Amino acid sequence: MTSADGLLVADLIGVAVFAASGAAAGVAKRFDLFGIAFVGFVAALGGGILRDLVIGAVPPLAFADWRYAVTAVLAAVAVFWLHPRLARWRRPVLLLDAAGLGLFTVTGTLKALDAGVPAVGACLIGMLTAIGGGLARDILTGEIPVVLQRDIYAVAALGGAILVTILRGLDVADPLTMGMSALLITGVRLVALYRRWSAPVAAP
Amino acid sequence: MTSADGLLVADLIGVAVFAASGAAAGVAKRFDLFGIAFVGFVAALGGGILRDLVIGAVPPLAFADWRYAVTAVLAAVAVFWLHPRLARWRRPVLLLDAAGLGLFTVTGTLKALDAGVPAVGACLIGMLTAIGGGLARDILTGEIPVVLQRDIYAVAALGGAILVTILRGLDVADPLTMGMSALLITGVRLVALYRRWSAPVAAP
Amino acid sequence: MTSADGLLVADLIGVAVFAASGAAAGVAKRFDLFGIAFVGFVAALGGGILRDLVIGAVPPLAFADWRYAVTAVLAAVAVFWLHPRLARWRRPVLLLDAAGLGLFTVTGTLKALDAGVPAVGACLIGMLTAIGGGLARDILTGEIPVVLQRDIYAVAALGGAILVTILRGLDVADPLTMGMSALLITGVRLVALYRRWSAPVAAP
Repeated sequence: MTSADGLLVADLIGVAVFAASGAAAGVAKRFDLFGIAFVGFVAALGGGILRDLVIGAVPPLAFADWRYAVTAVLAAVAVFWLHPRLARWRRPVLLLDAAGLGLFTVTGTLKALDAGVPAVGACLIGMLTAIGGGLARDILTGEIPVVLQRDIYAVAALGGAILVTILRGLDVADPLTMGMSALLITGVRLVALYRRWSAPVAAP
Repeated sequence: MTSADGLLVADLIGVAVFAASGAAAGVAKRFDLFGIAFVGFVAALGGGILRDLVIGAVPPLAFADWRYAVTAVLAAVAVFWLHPRLARWRRPVLLLDAAGLGLFTVTGTLKALDAGVPAVGACLIGMLTAIGGGLARDILTGEIPVVLQRDIYAVAALGGAILVTILRGLDVADPLTMGMSALLITGVRLVALYRRWSAPVAAP
Repeated sequence: MTSADGLLVADLIGVAVFAASGAAAGVAKRFDLFGIAFVGFVAALGGGILRDLVIGAVPPLAFADWRYAVTAVLAAVAVFWLHPRLARWRRPVLLLDAAGLGLFTVTGTLKALDAGVPAVGACLIGMLTAIGGGLARDILTGEIPVVLQRDIYAVAALGGAILVTILRGLDVADPLTMGMSALLITGVRLVALYRRWSAPVAAP
């Protein structure tokens, strides 16, 4: 397995986890099988589609490489059948979601930098790659996006995107940049979950 | 009338019907005349705008050819004036909507294939062309998208998009491909309406 | 200060005002600091991002020039701290919002014309530049977009976009075109506020 293969496998695991989160939201809203697959697709690939549109990479990877859409739909269909057993998997799902957050942010930020987007914009695009799918999932299911309301989630992604941009500026090798930044994001997210950290809310 | 003219007329009929569905949703929410015209525009042209962004055809047809926007707005304004009589038109509207579903899916899939999008992506783009406007209409009016909840609608579109892609792969002439695929979609949609078919919902 | 500098300063004032409107909506929904900054960013820059995607200007200005994102986030954070005092500022905020509406419409229409979009499409893109951020703000906070429901707001923008397109067609100098059109939009908006004009609603 080359390192490109390794990245693809990691990417597809992130796609599957995010698709499962979308599918679970669709099950909770009593969507039909199509609706569940669709919300799974959007939750997994919506952030990447937005990233590719913004950096001018058309057609977006979600449409250019069939493995992304097929992975998302298979994961969503699996949730359709298995969802009564999902409650038991809460911990591994949160762990994989934190890993997906790290991975999507890092690849999103690097793709934006490679496309010539300046530093601040690339960090924003990296974060949007990771949170865009969840935002779209919540809007499609009639919920106010949870990422805007509480928890350290997007802020962990933004911190990692900034680290990617700094390391790239210091000419650190890409695999090291990706590994350190993804670990930072996933680690901060998991510690925030464990310690119940959250961002401040405005005084009433 | 050449065949390009025929296609344009068919396309504009689809635009008018989808705009009317958007306008009716706006009337139901007590939007003002601008809001009704806007939801009509988005319901009719939102799917095509998304398609054109994703395949890199900018500016999207909805902005490049004034006949699309003007048709959508005129249809929406007609609904604003005539809506008390619309209940009587339920059956022809459902028929035209099924025809629009078929037409938008087929042209969307072909445009994606012509832009070099691989098969799986082109089918998804074709389906999104047809359902994207209705999704946006429901989100703008504060509803959970009906296409995700019940009915055979998007699945009929997806089946037709797959048929388009297969026939294109077999080098069937475009007019025949378009006719057969649009008929399949419209037929499946109408039979599903008549027989009250719907997709499965997850076990509670 | 050159006229380009002047335009940039005016643009950033519009960004700050629209970001403040997004941030205030986030505060009202009890979003956390990240959510407030994010809704501020989207309210200020969502319309311009849509404009740039539609005319093929990638990456959009909101990602290409860091001053836009930083201005939006600073304005949103200021609202986070200062919001209890904002009620007192209602009149200047409505005035600046009307100025932002005029400015964003005019620059959006001109950019679309410069990108080769025909007249009708350019007017629609100009209007979408000005109202797109507010639409996204309302959807992110779970509200039906206020611009669709009442008030003369988008219609003022559309009128100004049409004036821009006519003056451009008559070869009027850009600064004069921009000044007259922005004044028209801002003036109509303020008179509509003062006189409580609103667009018609469909008969029940």
